[in-house]
Order: sequence, then structure tokens, then C-alpha cells
Amino acid sequence: MSVEERVGAIVQRTQPAVQRRAMAKAITLLESTRPDHRAQADEMLTALLPHTGRAFRLGISGVPGVGKSTFIEALGLHLIAQGLRVAVLAIDPSSTVSGGSILGDKTRMEQLSMQESAYIRPSPSSGTLGGVAEKTRESLLVCEAAGYDVVIVETVGVGQSETAVQGMTDMFCVLQLPNAGDDLQAIKKGVMELADLVVINKADIDPHAATRAQAQITSSLRLLSMHGNPEHAHHDAALWQPRVITLSALKSEGVDDFWAAVSEFRQLQTANGRLAARRERQALAWMWERIDYGLKQAFRQHPGVRALLPQMQADVASGRIAASTAARNLLAAQAG
Amino acid sequence: MSVEERVGAIVQRTQPAVQRRAMAKAITLLESTRPDHRAQADEMLTALLPHTGRAFRLGISGVPGVGKSTFIEALGLHLIAQGLRVAVLAIDPSSTVSGGSILGDKTRMEQLSMQESAYIRPSPSSGTLGGVAEKTRESLLVCEAAGYDVVIVETVGVGQSETAVQGMTDMFCVLQLPNAGDDLQAIKKGVMELADLVVINKADIDPHAATRAQAQITSSLRLLSMHGNPEHAHHDAALWQPRVITLSALKSEGVDDFWAAVSEFRQLQTANGRLAARRERQALAWMWERIDYGLKQAFRQHPGVRALLPQMQADVASGRIAASTAARNLLAAQAG
Repeated sequence: MSVEERVGAIVQRTQPAVQRRAMAKAITLLESTRPDHRAQADEMLTALLPHTGRAFRLGISGVPGVGKSTFIEALGLHLIAQGLRVAVLAIDPSSTVSGGSILGDKTRMEQLSMQESAYIRPSPSSGTLGGVAEKTRESLLVCEAAGYDVVIVETVGVGQSETAVQGMTDMFCVLQLPNAGDDLQAIKKGVMELADLVVINKADIDPHAATRAQAQITSSLRLLSMHGNPEHAHHDAALWQPRVITLSALKSEGVDDFWAAVSEFRQLQTANGRLAARRERQALAWMWERIDYGLKQAFRQHPGVRALLPQMQADVASGRIAASTAARNLLAAQAG
Repeated sequence: MSVEERVGAIVQRTQPAVQRRAMAKAITLLESTRPDHRAQADEMLTALLPHTGRAFRLGISGVPGVGKSTFIEALGLHLIAQGLRVAVLAIDPSSTVSGGSILGDKTRMEQLSMQESAYIRPSPSSGTLGGVAEKTRESLLVCEAAGYDVVIVETVGVGQSETAVQGMTDMFCVLQLPNAGDDLQAIKKGVMELADLVVINKADIDPHAATRAQAQITSSLRLLSMHGNPEHAHHDAALWQPRVITLSALKSEGVDDFWAAVSEFRQLQTANGRLAARRERQALAWMWERIDYGLKQAFRQHPGVRALLPQMQADVASGRIAASTAARNLLAAQAG
């Protein structure tokens, strides 16, 4: 299939089944490691880009058991009822080990997956977190080109996957259970600092605990923003203070409040130019991340480096040469 | 001066004034950016290495106002009274901006700096954190070769400087004030997780607040170690649980307890082989960090990359090409 045909099938809106198949094939192409596929994928992405950028990119994070699937299903159905089209992507670094994915089983969001206006794609299940994140970023562009209004990128709290998702979305939401200690864990990992919105799910089970958790996390967020480095803040604290809302995804209670908060944030960030600035920053950071990865890969594969590395590593480990000297020797081996 | 002469003057113990001058000159050589100086410095380091490794490397971190200088002075005098020689180095990334250093003013540790058994060197005041950290790591080797028994590396809580100090020391201590919220800040920044020992200073001002802070931080550390990823743990929780002790550096109260805890940790880590393993890991991590830095620098200086970069950055920022495509184009420009 030519690149023009691929792109045409994705951006058209009249034949949903054709579009859906073209999206699946395009994403499979993006996930391929064959160099000729990669060249085609690059050409396709460049052709798709003018059709992207109109969706709202929503990141959702939360540890297993917090009710992410139930929440995303409730939210997706709520949005589809409003006439919107919703795509769900995932980043699950653990799937690269287990071969399984948090979204591999579509029955996890049974009702949502049956909707014609929903597109659900499991996490790529091979490669490093950087590689998985790259494929998800590119898949997000495919969904946008296909006219989806909201693209949800979900992740479990594994490694740096939250940072990866925050780095590709317009708004980053953290789901929490109403348990003491869970917020400490999220603060420790730096996840709270990334959050534009914190959602306390399962509030129906113990409304009092949920309210207590809401108060506690609100106060923690205030302390964090007081002590935080303003250069690292991703929104102006005077304009948007990260909120904490309680809801019950299982009972679909509070999903409308959630979406109202998201819509308010989106309007604010669009009006003050911070959404465009955030996307620009994300795209450039993504470029440099891929450059770093490529540089390291080329270094490790260089014959001169491969020949010298075992000896250098042994000498550094045993204290026979200084690490900085070994680094200079290895860099010289690549250059020479 | 030849490398042999330099090394000889540093490792000898009979002429303290000659040694002190040689150390200062050696560290100045390490801090030089001239390529010929760098080659000499590498040669000198390799010759010094067999004389290093016998000191205990102690990292001390704490925000401005926590009383670091007073604490290090009290500790240094305590150790000198026991017949030990103490060197104090510093990493202050803020000094690269201000030109000043947390240790630039020796009057900050007036009594300690007058001792013949003490050597105090301010933070290198130019370059990136990576560069500053490299020079401090190398200076640490010079101090060890000169026979100092304890090398203290201190840092303020700026950027990633705590991680850098933890990555070059045998034990990492965090100084805290007995204030609520301060521990939250340290947890957020991931500093608490790095700590082998937490010191609550200024306990004399409000002993009750200090005891409360001790209990609170102890419980936070327990929660963090429960939720932490065991692969990232830098000591076996069964053998060493990070402790929290209270003291008053100003009144020199509790400094002996502090040193007793440090000595216990040192013996434990030496006996179970974790100290040697930690140093080996640190040296290899340092080598890879310098390689990464060198790769990025070579990339940015490559004529083909410099020619293409402005256009690629503009195209990525405006959404004309995908970030991953731009990264591949730039990598090809360096390779081609």
C-alpha cells in the first residue's frame, strides 16, 4: 500500500471500518523494527502531521487496583454520549517483560470497546520504555489524524512511565485510592508534582475516607507548590492550582465533574497559550530524547568501542584507571 | 613539574606544607579546561589511583540555613581530636551561576580551617553539574592519596546535586530542621530515599519539635522502604534501616552519637562487601555519565548537525515534521 493510500484511508471519515483497519495497520507499521518499514513510517507520519493536533490529549496514571479501566470506560462512554470520538492508548513497560499488556485484553473495557466511536489499542509490548513511549506518541498522531476528539493515554505506575505520559499529553491526571500512604508514595515518585488533577476513585466505598484523603492531598499539593522550583512548574500557579476531586467510576458518579474540570483546564491553557507552548516543548524534548538514545546505541555498536569496553570496564571496576580517563579513552576509540 | 614529582609531593607525609601546596596545584590542574592540562591530569590521576581508596567518603546534604557549616566544623574538630585527618569538598551548582561558592569563604569554618589536619576546598565554580561533580570526584581521589582519613563532600539542595554526592560517597547523610513540611520536600525530591542517615539539627532550640520530627521522618522512611523498588535499594533493609538522629551542632551535642552511627554503618558495609560493590557501581556509573556527556557534546559540535539543527528544531516546534523523524535526520547528518 502506498503512503498516500494509507494516509487517505486514515484521514477520511466516511468509511469507519476502512479507517479502523488503516489505523491498526499504520500502528503496526510504526511498531515494526525493520528499517524499510521505519522509512515508510517516517514518510507516513510526515504526511499525517498536517491532520493532527486538534484532539485533547489526556494522560491517566494510577497503580493497579485503583480502578483505571473502570474509570476510563465510564469517561469514554460519557464522552461518546456527548457525540465525541475517543481513542485509548497505553504505556505499560511491564508488558515488555511479561509479554502481556494492561490493555491486551479488550474485555477489560468491554462496553467501551464495542462502541463505534471508540478506538482502543494495547501498549506496545517490546523494547525499552523510551521505545514504547515513542511508538505510543506516534500512535497518538495516527488517532488525531483519524479525527478522534479525545486521546487518552493511560499508564500503570511503573518506572518512569508517568513522566513519559505526562510528556506527551495536554493534561495529566493521577488516580488515587482513599488510603493514607498512597499519596506519600506518589509524592516520593514525583508523580504528584506532574499532576494537573488528582482523582480519588472509589469514593462510594467510604465517603469519609475519601474526603479526608482529598483534604490531605490538597494540603500536600499546596506544600509542594510552595517549595517547588518555579522553573519546573508546568503551569502558572496563579492560574491553575492542581485540584483534587472525588468520584466513583463504578457508579459513574462524578465523571461529569471530572470532565468539567478537564474542560476548564483546556480552555484556560488554550486561551493563555500554555497548551501550544507545552506541545512545542514536548516535541523538542522528544527529539532530544531520541537523539540521546541513538547516540548511545551507535556508541555501543562501534567496533572500536566494543573491542575496548570490556578492558576499560574491568579497569574502572578494579580501580586501575579513573572513570573519567576510561570515558575519554572510549570516546577516542569511537572517534579514531 | 613532572607527573612523578606531583604525585610524590602528594603522597608523602613528612612535609605537610609541601603536600598542601601540591594538593592545591593538582586540584587546580584538574579544574583546568586546557586539553594539555587535561592530558597531564589524566596521567596524574592514574598514578595517584593505587594510593586511593582508604578514606571513608561521607556525603552531607542540607538546604541553606540547616547548619551544615556548623555541623561539619563540629564533626571535623571531633575527628581531628581523635587523631584523624579530614578533608572537606563541596558541590555547589549555584556557584556556577553566582560565581560564589558555599565554601568560597573559608571563614565559614574558621576553627576547622586553621587545623593542620584539615583540608578545605571550595566547590568548582564553573561548568555544568556533571562537570563540577567530575572535578569533585577527582579532587576526592587527590585527598585520599594524600592520606586523609575522612573526606566529607557537602552540597546544598539544588537541582540534582544530592544525587551527584550520593553517587560518589560511601554514606549519604541528610541534615534537616525540626520543621513540618521540610521532610515532605525532601521526600518529594527523592533525597530521603538516598539517605543512609538523617540528622535533625538544632534540636536544642525545641527538643519536643525535634523528637516529633524524628518520629515523623522515621515513619516516612519506613513507608518509603515498604513501597520502594527493592532493585533500587542501595542497602539491604534487613541489615541497615536508615536512622534518624537528633543533635545540636552549635552546642556540639550528639556529634559523638553521629560518628558512632557512621562507624557502625562503615563496619557493616565493609564486612558484607557492600562498600566495595557500591564504589565499583559508582565508578562505572561515572564512566557512563562522562561518555554520555562526551557523545552529546560531539553531536552538538558536528558541522553537519550544526547546519541542520536550526531548521529541524523549527520544523519540530511548528509541527511540520515528527520529532522522531527529525532525530533520525540529525543522527544521519552526524554519521554522513
